[in-house]
Amino acid sequence: MNYSMIRFILFRLLRIMGTLFTLPLIVALVYKEYDSAISFLILAAVCFVVGTIFTIKKPANRVIYAKEGFAITAVAWIAVSMMGAVPFVITGTIPNYIDALFETVSGFTTTGGSILTTVDNIEKSVQFWRTFTHWIGGMGVLVFLLAVVPMADGYSMHLMRAESPGPVVGKIVPKVKDTAKILYIIYFGITVTEIVCLIISGMPIYDAITISFSTVGTGGFAVRDTGMMGYSLVSQAIIILFMALCGINFTVYYFLLNRKPKEAFAIDEVKFYLGTMLISAGIIAFNVYRSGCVTDPRLAFHHSLFSVASIMTTTGFCTLDFDTWPMLSKLMLVVLSLIGACAGSTGGGFKFSRALIVIRNARNELNFIVHPKAVKRVYMDGHSVEGTTVKSVTAYLGIYVITFIASTLIVALDNFDFQTTVTSVVATLNNIGPGLGMVGPTGNYSQFSYLSKLVLMFDMLAGRLELLPIFVILKPKTWRR
Amino acid sequence: MNYSMIRFILFRLLRIMGTLFTLPLIVALVYKEYDSAISFLILAAVCFVVGTIFTIKKPANRVIYAKEGFAITAVAWIAVSMMGAVPFVITGTIPNYIDALFETVSGFTTTGGSILTTVDNIEKSVQFWRTFTHWIGGMGVLVFLLAVVPMADGYSMHLMRAESPGPVVGKIVPKVKDTAKILYIIYFGITVTEIVCLIISGMPIYDAITISFSTVGTGGFAVRDTGMMGYSLVSQAIIILFMALCGINFTVYYFLLNRKPKEAFAIDEVKFYLGTMLISAGIIAFNVYRSGCVTDPRLAFHHSLFSVASIMTTTGFCTLDFDTWPMLSKLMLVVLSLIGACAGSTGGGFKFSRALIVIRNARNELNFIVHPKAVKRVYMDGHSVEGTTVKSVTAYLGIYVITFIASTLIVALDNFDFQTTVTSVVATLNNIGPGLGMVGPTGNYSQFSYLSKLVLMFDMLAGRLELLPIFVILKPKTWRR
Repeated sequence: MNYSMIRFILFRLLRIMGTLFTLPLIVALVYKEYDSAISFLILAAVCFVVGTIFTIKKPANRVIYAKEGFAITAVAWIAVSMMGAVPFVITGTIPNYIDALFETVSGFTTTGGSILTTVDNIEKSVQFWRTFTHWIGGMGVLVFLLAVVPMADGYSMHLMRAESPGPVVGKIVPKVKDTAKILYIIYFGITVTEIVCLIISGMPIYDAITISFSTVGTGGFAVRDTGMMGYSLVSQAIIILFMALCGINFTVYYFLLNRKPKEAFAIDEVKFYLGTMLISAGIIAFNVYRSGCVTDPRLAFHHSLFSVASIMTTTGFCTLDFDTWPMLSKLMLVVLSLIGACAGSTGGGFKFSRALIVIRNARNELNFIVHPKAVKRVYMDGHSVEGTTVKSVTAYLGIYVITFIASTLIVALDNFDFQTTVTSVVATLNNIGPGLGMVGPTGNYSQFSYLSKLVLMFDMLAGRLELLPIFVILKPKTWRR
Repeated sequence: MNYSMIRFILFRLLRIMGTLFTLPLIVALVYKEYDSAISFLILAAVCFVVGTIFTIKKPANRVIYAKEGFAITAVAWIAVSMMGAVPFVITGTIPNYIDALFETVSGFTTTGGSILTTVDNIEKSVQFWRTFTHWIGGMGVLVFLLAVVPMADGYSMHLMRAESPGPVVGKIVPKVKDTAKILYIIYFGITVTEIVCLIISGMPIYDAITISFSTVGTGGFAVRDTGMMGYSLVSQAIIILFMALCGINFTVYYFLLNRKPKEAFAIDEVKFYLGTMLISAGIIAFNVYRSGCVTDPRLAFHHSLFSVASIMTTTGFCTLDFDTWPMLSKLMLVVLSLIGACAGSTGGGFKFSRALIVIRNARNELNFIVHPKAVKRVYMDGHSVEGTTVKSVTAYLGIYVITFIASTLIVALDNFDFQTTVTSVVATLNNIGPGLGMVGPTGNYSQFSYLSKLVLMFDMLAGRLELLPIFVILKPKTWRR
């Protein structure tokens, strides 16, 4: 284990945090929240200075392997969350540090589940920081680092692989640094476009910026107690569009920017993702309309599509309380949340590409009985998937199920109802935010015990980092020199 | 597809059904239920005569492959269930055929979930048939056929493989016919032992026989409305013992009978099965005692162990209504029911050996990150598991999850609560019987729509036959000549 490299990267991240804290500082100055401004100023200065001092001496040995890549990623996310929670405590927004940490982990992992019972009275600068964590976490803390810090390509790939969602990590251009830069440029472009669209639709500028952070990061924090319900249908429609776009594999945009529409539309996962979204929205709209929850069929489709896009991309925004919908609609949302979005997007969940590999592998097994001479091979995007990838994906399914079961049993100690217990884990492990029952669209996570909150934080991190990094750091062997 | 062989095996089974119907006929005569006696007599005669006539001409081509093995198994189970439901209808016990079919599928698959709201007034002969279906289904309809019908060994193995539970099917002796006979002899021996023990413990003879059928088949049908609650603690303890014994891989008994204790105790699965049972019972006893549901700690352990053994072996007997227990205990029971019993036992569920392979495969994946040069290999009982077995098991997990999700969504159309919807599928797909909520220990399956009942019947069959056979017959390609 290359400890000096871990130290170097962690302090480099601290310096970046220092730079990032200047943004809520500016917001605090604009809205004349001077107490908070001082807090953010001190934080920014301390982080920047400490981060700079401890990165002056560069590590002699810059070699990192897969093990280091995974460990650094997990440790970095925990460290960034612990640092990111400080503003909530020192501004008095969330005095309890565990609760503040829950909120921050929920922010960076783009979960969007909150322990706050009301957000209307929170200062603008703190609100800004709260939604900005979604934006940072959406594309990834380390992807950002890779884009700005020079590092040898062979090693930085290990970091990229550990943080990026999906079963196979593709560099879209040969160099990792360039890939990271391109991803952030696309991400920035989408964010600015959404802000502009929302302002045109009549949303206040502050809301447009913060809600855009939450949307493109597929996070789910809102800045008003009314959530998304207070905005116009047009604004809601724009949010649907951008949620759906951010759940797509970002490689698609790179291909489109390079005028390679064929390559962009050849990705199986994206077709299934969009198809599932529309079909599910149709079924839920019909179910909700027939049950009388929404009396206008067009509105039923609008709200169903919003909910489906929000849940599939694991954003977690709500325009209606879907906890009052019929069981079929509720269960469909739970199932969709398990699958999640596309690999290589900012969304969470099991990922469509993994689900496709699991389904195709299962179909192979059945085919094999009927045609014992058939070759067992899984195809994606017209190519056969390597055996090791199939094995990793099925192993992933195993780890996912085990994590899910273990978490649910610990949360059950709080003795809440079946629905709340199960869906609180579903909602955190898949980085969605709202579940059903007490953690439904009108509920929150404030009533859980500290033990449950810690487990749910673990689940959020495990979900965002796709399980492996967070388990790697739990193995004592990882830490041997 | 060898159609003449399918015909031959189906009519052969019909003849066996004719023979089996003579047992409830005798019970009807003993208890002077003459109307039912006539019904069973006619049924037995018709089945035997028709079965004999259509099996006079033996098929010229007796070759069957894996495909035929799976298809015959699935079709045979459906046919046997359809035939087995007739007594319930003609005796007027369950006038509706769909409901009678549900009860029979639940019987043969050893699920034990009932659509009956009361069983106290049912005639003794019909009760006998109802619990006897558990006994037949426990060891397997086709294993019985293999034990009595001469068939070439290479082909009969395909039937054995399709019906036997677990990831790897081992013949305990070289010949399939002998293996089937040995299994039935052990099974018969355990049954008789339990009957004798229960009678000694003071249980009425009729109850002892029927409850033993339900126990060793790990079914769960009771013959009184009080279920198991009406019997003495000693009788309950005997039932715990026999449930636990029947959830163990039957190969263990063969080894023990042949004085090979080393081989018997070298089976990983059995160690984990018994360990999990005792530890879970301890945790649940503590949880139940602390919550005040049971005030005597010894009684708490007794009822916890009973529930755990009942759920893990997927029997489904209850001595207390565990739906009133704290959420941790309830969820632990749900989780245990998903894992189920050992492969090669009469119990259902995902099976311990599969769970172990999934867990060890997941652990391998993590090890691989820390030690990229390590060889990825899963070990069981000290031997390395073949890659194809690991692949089949993980594919099985995929099919299992997909079946579970699809079933839950259809059952959700009935719009019952989350707990009822989810656990009704858990309880049928794993052949347990009781779930939570409306299908809890004090509830039943009578309120579901016909669509849901059909889906749950499908799940019971899919669970008992371990998914593949029931999906193989759904593929049109299977039926090509």
